[in-house]
Amino acid sequence: MPFQNLPGFRDFYPEECSVREALFEVWRKTAERYGFERYDGPPLELLDLYRKKSGDEIVGQLYNFKDKGDREIALRPEMTPTLARMAGARQREFKKPMKWYAIPQLFRYERAQRGRLREHFQWNCDILGEESLGAEVELIALLIESFEKLGLTSKDIVVRVSDREFWSEFLRAKSIPEEQHYEFFQALDKMEREDPEKTREKLGPLADEVLQAIESRATNARLREVLDRLTALGLKDYIEVDLRIVRGLAYYTGVVFEVHDRERQFRAIAGGGRYDGLVELISGVKLPALGFGMGDVVILELLKDLGKQPKRIKRPGVFLVISDEAFRDDALRMAGALRKSGYAVEYSLAPAKVGKQFQVAEEKGALFALVVDAQIEEGRCGLKDLHARRQEDVAFQISNGRITFQPALPLAPDESLIG
Amino acid sequence: MPFQNLPGFRDFYPEECSVREALFEVWRKTAERYGFERYDGPPLELLDLYRKKSGDEIVGQLYNFKDKGDREIALRPEMTPTLARMAGARQREFKKPMKWYAIPQLFRYERAQRGRLREHFQWNCDILGEESLGAEVELIALLIESFEKLGLTSKDIVVRVSDREFWSEFLRAKSIPEEQHYEFFQALDKMEREDPEKTREKLGPLADEVLQAIESRATNARLREVLDRLTALGLKDYIEVDLRIVRGLAYYTGVVFEVHDRERQFRAIAGGGRYDGLVELISGVKLPALGFGMGDVVILELLKDLGKQPKRIKRPGVFLVISDEAFRDDALRMAGALRKSGYAVEYSLAPAKVGKQFQVAEEKGALFALVVDAQIEEGRCGLKDLHARRQEDVAFQISNGRITFQPALPLAPDESLIG
Repeated sequence: MPFQNLPGFRDFYPEECSVREALFEVWRKTAERYGFERYDGPPLELLDLYRKKSGDEIVGQLYNFKDKGDREIALRPEMTPTLARMAGARQREFKKPMKWYAIPQLFRYERAQRGRLREHFQWNCDILGEESLGAEVELIALLIESFEKLGLTSKDIVVRVSDREFWSEFLRAKSIPEEQHYEFFQALDKMEREDPEKTREKLGPLADEVLQAIESRATNARLREVLDRLTALGLKDYIEVDLRIVRGLAYYTGVVFEVHDRERQFRAIAGGGRYDGLVELISGVKLPALGFGMGDVVILELLKDLGKQPKRIKRPGVFLVISDEAFRDDALRMAGALRKSGYAVEYSLAPAKVGKQFQVAEEKGALFALVVDAQIEEGRCGLKDLHARRQEDVAFQISNGRITFQPALPLAPDESLIG
Repeated sequence: MPFQNLPGFRDFYPEECSVREALFEVWRKTAERYGFERYDGPPLELLDLYRKKSGDEIVGQLYNFKDKGDREIALRPEMTPTLARMAGARQREFKKPMKWYAIPQLFRYERAQRGRLREHFQWNCDILGEESLGAEVELIALLIESFEKLGLTSKDIVVRVSDREFWSEFLRAKSIPEEQHYEFFQALDKMEREDPEKTREKLGPLADEVLQAIESRATNARLREVLDRLTALGLKDYIEVDLRIVRGLAYYTGVVFEVHDRERQFRAIAGGGRYDGLVELISGVKLPALGFGMGDVVILELLKDLGKQPKRIKRPGVFLVISDEAFRDDALRMAGALRKSGYAVEYSLAPAKVGKQFQVAEEKGALFALVVDAQIEEGRCGLKDLHARRQEDVAFQISNGRITFQPALPLAPDESLIG
């Protein structure tokens, strides 16, 4: 029986890989325009790194194992612990704020159900060493810009914003002991998917007041500042205050947010917030921090659903048609010079009839065919525009390995490769 | 004690990551100009996939473990078995030849010695479904072009080319039984690092003839055709026939090659060849194939040694200087419009003195500073060229979220991000 990929792991054939790379390209460009620098860490870490952050319960969900040196290892389930480890270890060398991004592949050992993946890619953008709310604004603006670059608008998605401190202050004002806060946040986190009576029960005597705050979209000074700035940026339509957003995890400390499609057909598309305590927990170094993660799976499902799947167009700018094998070396020289000049070039690697070569050129979506025949000796060749279906003879010159045409080739270098 | 990365695994801080990404960019662009399409597979496969290709001995070198479902798993040590699995499974859907590339991270469980890595990245380019020698020429030309793009010439590197068939024919002519061929190839593979007497001993009665063929750089018709075409392409200076090159592994079937630095200070930089039997072995589908792999570690060591380390330059095109917090919203709007227009933009996320903001702009290597002050109400701001140290007032307009300046900003979008 032929070998198969492991359950929950994807093969990226060129078609799917081109979609993935187009998405990564949007992520990369958006982050860099916002001044974020790329970093990366190992796909494996000591299991204890994740235990330290999330407690022992996390182990059940991890893709963990013992290595040959008897170490307890996990394939990284998220990037933030690695970031906290790296940033903590060398933070003195970097000017603050540090604005870093990464596109790691992440792993979980989910029960293998139909379509349930054990890996995905996730864009992570984090700002370290900045306490000011300006960082929240920058991060949310960056996140929204990435959606706009993918062709989405506030009609398609919503950024639901909350503040963990809103509730922490509320609970402190009610003299609820700290050790009960986590349970409270859990109740909020679950309320969208739970029977309202059940939620009321969990919230107990606080229920009325809590539900009232949620319904009236209550805010505090911090939320208002973030909202005002995002409004000034013209991003108001994307934002909804939603105090039910607590981001499940225990480690967020301030403003948190989560992105959903408006129709609510999909799981959360992205999420993040401020986590001022984590770097210290992992590395012993105090460093305020905030960030978000966006996976490749949900956003690509949504984009597909909306008919907006990204794709890098890749096709030869020029396909060389070799009229006779006697001219193969000339054609190769031409291919070399064209490629050196920045063009994507293909030709038939094996001898083939001229008609067949034109056919392959068409199938590959080439923009131009250059016919290499006896004229080549006089520095001329036939240039066929495969879309306009026009052919003319052109003169060319190769010097320093680069090629120029007379009249000039109506095609910019790399033009055929840009999505 | 703070957490550390696992032995043999690298952290890529922004500085190192920028070098890595610059190298990947050269690999990606070169492959795409040659019409190769990107693919990727899972970083984990069944251990048996590698056993099937390389025998049981390979297991000692692999980063393998048992997963929670009691499967024997390995982190991929090379890409070719995954490629053979994927290509075999769906080859009917693709026109031949398939020209595919990937940049996977690969893993080995080497004994943890100083500086010995357990992971590296490797550029893989393969051509599947093409028997003609035109494929070898294309692949070697592509490989050389990637070196030229990195600033290397035939003075820096050499491509040593051989043909496994040269020796297979030789051994058949001598009636040496097939089962002794592997041993013969092992002797050739080791001879550069071994005492000549030891080699003679291993080669036995064939020694004189074999050494004579190697010394005289003997060729066969296939090698001559490849050499002639590469010569026509102007790549002669890069190529040396070297019949000692057998590429250690058992699965190569035809032309093989290996790239070394001329000074021979480093391990092989890249290597590859034709492996017509592998896809069938893995997937049961006959598909001729050839390819090469180039790791990130050796080439970056060589480039560093030659002072040619690649690097993507990333710096803000524009740094916004906020003269007073009252203008922060205006500055944010401007940042949004500039970024939407393709510029890399930064500004101080927290309130800061104007002098400090200019200092940060300089530290970050920004090309221009835009001073946002009271003039902003009239659609004007101060533009300072931070390199020419010239300042002038310019008018601007924001419409549809994009910004235009009068006079125009002397900076192309993304210009500051290109390496």
